[in-house]
Amino acid sequence: MQLRIPGPTPCPEEVLSSLSRQMINHRGEEFAELIWNLTERLKNIFMTKGDVFILTSSGTGAMEASIVNTLSPGDRVLALSNGFFGERFSGVASAFGAEVLKLDFEWGKAIEPEKVRDVLKKERDVKAVLVVHNETSTGLTNPLKEIARVVREYDRLLLVDAISSLSCIELPMDEWGCDVVFTGSQKGFMVPPGLSFIAINERGWEAYKKAKMPKFYWDLGKAKSFLEKGQTPWTPSIPIFFALDVALRLIEKEGLRNIFERHKRVADKVREGIKELGLSLFPDERYASNTITAVRSPDGLDTRELLKILREEYDVVLAGGQDRLSGKIFRIGHLGKVSEADMDEVLRAIGSALSKMRR
Amino acid sequence: MQLRIPGPTPCPEEVLSSLSRQMINHRGEEFAELIWNLTERLKNIFMTKGDVFILTSSGTGAMEASIVNTLSPGDRVLALSNGFFGERFSGVASAFGAEVLKLDFEWGKAIEPEKVRDVLKKERDVKAVLVVHNETSTGLTNPLKEIARVVREYDRLLLVDAISSLSCIELPMDEWGCDVVFTGSQKGFMVPPGLSFIAINERGWEAYKKAKMPKFYWDLGKAKSFLEKGQTPWTPSIPIFFALDVALRLIEKEGLRNIFERHKRVADKVREGIKELGLSLFPDERYASNTITAVRSPDGLDTRELLKILREEYDVVLAGGQDRLSGKIFRIGHLGKVSEADMDEVLRAIGSALSKMRR
Repeated sequence: MQLRIPGPTPCPEEVLSSLSRQMINHRGEEFAELIWNLTERLKNIFMTKGDVFILTSSGTGAMEASIVNTLSPGDRVLALSNGFFGERFSGVASAFGAEVLKLDFEWGKAIEPEKVRDVLKKERDVKAVLVVHNETSTGLTNPLKEIARVVREYDRLLLVDAISSLSCIELPMDEWGCDVVFTGSQKGFMVPPGLSFIAINERGWEAYKKAKMPKFYWDLGKAKSFLEKGQTPWTPSIPIFFALDVALRLIEKEGLRNIFERHKRVADKVREGIKELGLSLFPDERYASNTITAVRSPDGLDTRELLKILREEYDVVLAGGQDRLSGKIFRIGHLGKVSEADMDEVLRAIGSALSKMRR
Repeated sequence: MQLRIPGPTPCPEEVLSSLSRQMINHRGEEFAELIWNLTERLKNIFMTKGDVFILTSSGTGAMEASIVNTLSPGDRVLALSNGFFGERFSGVASAFGAEVLKLDFEWGKAIEPEKVRDVLKKERDVKAVLVVHNETSTGLTNPLKEIARVVREYDRLLLVDAISSLSCIELPMDEWGCDVVFTGSQKGFMVPPGLSFIAINERGWEAYKKAKMPKFYWDLGKAKSFLEKGQTPWTPSIPIFFALDVALRLIEKEGLRNIFERHKRVADKVREGIKELGLSLFPDERYASNTITAVRSPDGLDTRELLKILREEYDVVLAGGQDRLSGKIFRIGHLGKVSEADMDEVLRAIGSALSKMRR
């Protein structure tokens, strides 16, 4: 099967088999060695000298953690949004009582750093900026480096959703000046869902000290004090820790730089292949993502039917559009364990399914 | 190895091997069938006709969910506490702005329903009562049936931490009148950590409608609307779902009634064996738990050293005491996959390690 949704992504055999180990004591020495080791290696992927924590949750849990650990009810935040996950990030901040200033861009268009600057120049009391690095819903990578530069100019806190980018698309957190960055285990990491990873720097900790949003499960201060003992505050999902260990070994062996290039090569192939099939990309191509390709459904095509045929007749599982894009696009995930050959197979299946539908 | 901490508990071979399946689409038909099926079978374990949800988190996540889905900041709650987890439950409620009225009992003594009645009689504006069914920290099972009867008399909401009891010790939620009950995957269920289960009845949903505590990840209303589609709002930890399927089959085959009896038999054996070794139980024996035995450390015994010898020389992993009980007790977990033969081995190891230490 080609499971090519934007996550969970297929896991390598050695990752899957590592899941079957018997449980160990999460308050014992072996686990302590494991979590210290994994945490240090994750710092290399976040490219940070800050702190990294492993939470037992999906990526949205880490999104909530990024908000409640740095903000207080009533704090003004600038939420940049050009897709479903930008909306979600903004929604979490609102749910916890932040006063959210939304800066919306058309879905499929990139966030414009200049417009972010205009707002920050005017709105002096904005405490934090929320941004999604790679908008999974539209297959678009926002120009995070440039956005971060603007946020640093105005010295605001920058919280970054890197759920579908980290480990696949360059994101040197410290160099670019991002303060809190989070991701999930089931995307680029080639690990099953069940864990999320969140990195926080000194500015993030300064914000933590003043943050009054209620928190318990997501409290990074607790996570930090337990990590010193080689533990998590709450029982961690041990099998996914085992899997992460193996997956990081694969990532380290290939090398981050090579992984970024592979994702670019694979994405280029997908984009070309899609055009050769007479289809077009949904997002502004200059910002098309190297991990997810969103394809505009041709007029009159029943996208749901296309996905069903692909699934049932070709064993290729792709994703539809979310929310306002439902029925208007379909999405190909090409992140984590993915090769050009995988995408050849997917493209052939799409081509063949389309001609079948048009017959 | 005998991993006999109060959780994670050892997983059966067939549960472990089920973890290694390749990922599937969490928004696809196969997952929908799986989650609907698992949810119905979990209802049998909670003995409820209410709703049950599977969250990707540890048990403490479900504890937070029980609070934020039913309460508003400023609500008065009565937190019953006779151990570390009673304190935690109370702490979560405080963290989210509830006005917590604590009713404390000595650690190792049971909660007294009459004293709960005295408080509820006097304090007319208490909205909810928080109680831990099985206090993992002291090896004690609170008389939940009687406590629930009092709470029903006064028609308050009853939130129950059943993390180390559900599926091992009787807890017919509907019959006893509990409103929200939650547990974790890594205890009696013989499943690795990574999921929690939470059940909520009609009264719980009534409270939900008025509950103003901030929530996003834990929002059970969202969980309900996604479950109708056979989904979870956020990406679920798929391998642990596979494991739960297999573990529930084992539980159903043995039968809940037989499982309760096995836990009682095993616990009786442990308690007798401990006394035969000249040791004594920490909690009031009339309320000693069938899933965890807390043993008082004899005067002058270095508990840490005992646990180290057991671990290194006998391959038996037990737990120490938490918080104020650190160094004063040690704890044997006997829940989930456990037999009398397992406990024979553990008791022999304890006896042998003790004579070695006394030599």
